[in-house]
Amino acid sequence: MTDTKPIRRIAIIGTGVIGASWSSLFLAKGLQVVATDIAPNAEAALRKFVETAWPALERLGLSPGASQANLKFTPDIAQALAGADLVQENGPERIEFKQKLYGQLDELLPPDVIIASSSSGLTMSEIQKGAASHPERCVIAHPFNPPHLIPLTEIVGGAKTSEATIRRAAEFYTSIGQRTVRLNKEMPGHVANRLQAALSREVYYLVAEGVVSAADVDTALSWGPGLRWGVMGSLMLNHLGGGPGGIEHFFQQFTGPMTAWWKTLGSPVLTPEVQKKLIDSVHAEAGSRTIEQLEAERDEVLLGLIELRKKAAKPS
Amino acid sequence: MTDTKPIRRIAIIGTGVIGASWSSLFLAKGLQVVATDIAPNAEAALRKFVETAWPALERLGLSPGASQANLKFTPDIAQALAGADLVQENGPERIEFKQKLYGQLDELLPPDVIIASSSSGLTMSEIQKGAASHPERCVIAHPFNPPHLIPLTEIVGGAKTSEATIRRAAEFYTSIGQRTVRLNKEMPGHVANRLQAALSREVYYLVAEGVVSAADVDTALSWGPGLRWGVMGSLMLNHLGGGPGGIEHFFQQFTGPMTAWWKTLGSPVLTPEVQKKLIDSVHAEAGSRTIEQLEAERDEVLLGLIELRKKAAKPS
Repeated sequence: MTDTKPIRRIAIIGTGVIGASWSSLFLAKGLQVVATDIAPNAEAALRKFVETAWPALERLGLSPGASQANLKFTPDIAQALAGADLVQENGPERIEFKQKLYGQLDELLPPDVIIASSSSGLTMSEIQKGAASHPERCVIAHPFNPPHLIPLTEIVGGAKTSEATIRRAAEFYTSIGQRTVRLNKEMPGHVANRLQAALSREVYYLVAEGVVSAADVDTALSWGPGLRWGVMGSLMLNHLGGGPGGIEHFFQQFTGPMTAWWKTLGSPVLTPEVQKKLIDSVHAEAGSRTIEQLEAERDEVLLGLIELRKKAAKPS
Repeated sequence: MTDTKPIRRIAIIGTGVIGASWSSLFLAKGLQVVATDIAPNAEAALRKFVETAWPALERLGLSPGASQANLKFTPDIAQALAGADLVQENGPERIEFKQKLYGQLDELLPPDVIIASSSSGLTMSEIQKGAASHPERCVIAHPFNPPHLIPLTEIVGGAKTSEATIRRAAEFYTSIGQRTVRLNKEMPGHVANRLQAALSREVYYLVAEGVVSAADVDTALSWGPGLRWGVMGSLMLNHLGGGPGGIEHFFQQFTGPMTAWWKTLGSPVLTPEVQKKLIDSVHAEAGSRTIEQLEAERDEVLLGLIELRKKAAKPS
């Protein structure tokens, strides 16, 4: 395996929301994309997705050579893989399906082609059991939805993944502007989804218990700690929360109350009744705004925030 | 009690970081502030804090009549309370201290003056036991640090707080640009701190277990879910996460994996060893950047984000 082969052509396996979003990002970064999916109308749906995503990608800045014309589609998987430098796999989250697919990919691809899975629910140690010949080139590269806007990729190998694969994958995603996170151990949900699950559990609990409405808990998050988490991670914020004494002083001061609060956090069960309470409260919050209007509200501020963050991250 | 008496003059009890930050915000909103604290040098420290905070407040927009000259300081609590329309209390988080203080405030103030506590760790039902004559005008109005930048106020009454007090308090904080959240029940940590505690627990766990570095978990949060939470609350994001099917479809699709992840979330114990591991990893993340530099990085993006959010919230 050579470390220096440039990654210019990406095969996208599966063009649902995640695969279509990855396709848009790769195209915006000036890469060649060949996508495949067995669903009827997959090509039309993919092209529509990319077209819809394009204005946001233009606003965030296209790379030289970026063009929707660099997107090819074929229902034939072997054709999609021919000449690919990296495969981004977004198949269904069923282990038997994935293992069979990885067997097929492993046979069709030269050994120096990385196979990166977007899986959020399965581990690479399980998935790569299907790739008998070259399991070492298989790795999880997990995006955060929607990948074409949220610049995060979580990278974690399985038991048989090589260090070289992990390093090349990290270099590739970093080179196209993604912030990459390296997990040293496989964990269900990786990192970002676990953080989201931990937070959501308390959100559901507080609404289910009638402490606050959906609108109020959303306000408390997005005008409170969420504002800060949109700017900086929570450990660095703890460091600043300790004042001149930093993280050491933070722990001295807050270990007591934090630990006490942990004991009272909720463990809701999402029964149909609890779901109904949450659903009703969310609809009250949304009011007359449609999903489309809410998405537009979200993306407008999200794009602005990403621009702010990228500008701040550049050395001045 | 009249509902219509305008709130123009605020007495600040306790001018530590929270009291000083509230003072800055109230002054920026064009209000008169009389602050009191028994600490030596309290006045100088307060005036320095306000002066340092002022440029950010100017950037976010001063109200007509806003001036640092509207800040008075007196070490005499009775003098500070004279003529106050609302008291923002930021005393030490010890229940005996607070109850004694509320007894004094209750005696010195006319019954139509709201006493609002910034307490994060105590409940108003306990605190207001000290205010024998008019406990109904006592309420928690809890800010999120730093209050002069983060526009969130959590409002919750104790057993004896009147509905009129809660309504007047909500109207007042809303009138000065705060997003107010109403808790229907008293909860340790209110809402925002509970959400922060729930998230931090998993952050500490993942670093303590060696899954990720502090730098990587901070990247995963602030370039992943944090970016979205800086824009919108998590229930509304769930609603959008369900696609055209909304929150109903979200629960159909994600209740399974989410519930599975909940079972694997960590419950770290913050032993000295665990704290040391976290502290070392945070220092590695901070590198050569000082607390002051990191604060400047945070506040630059934070102010930009708040401007974006406020602009988006205005009906166009």
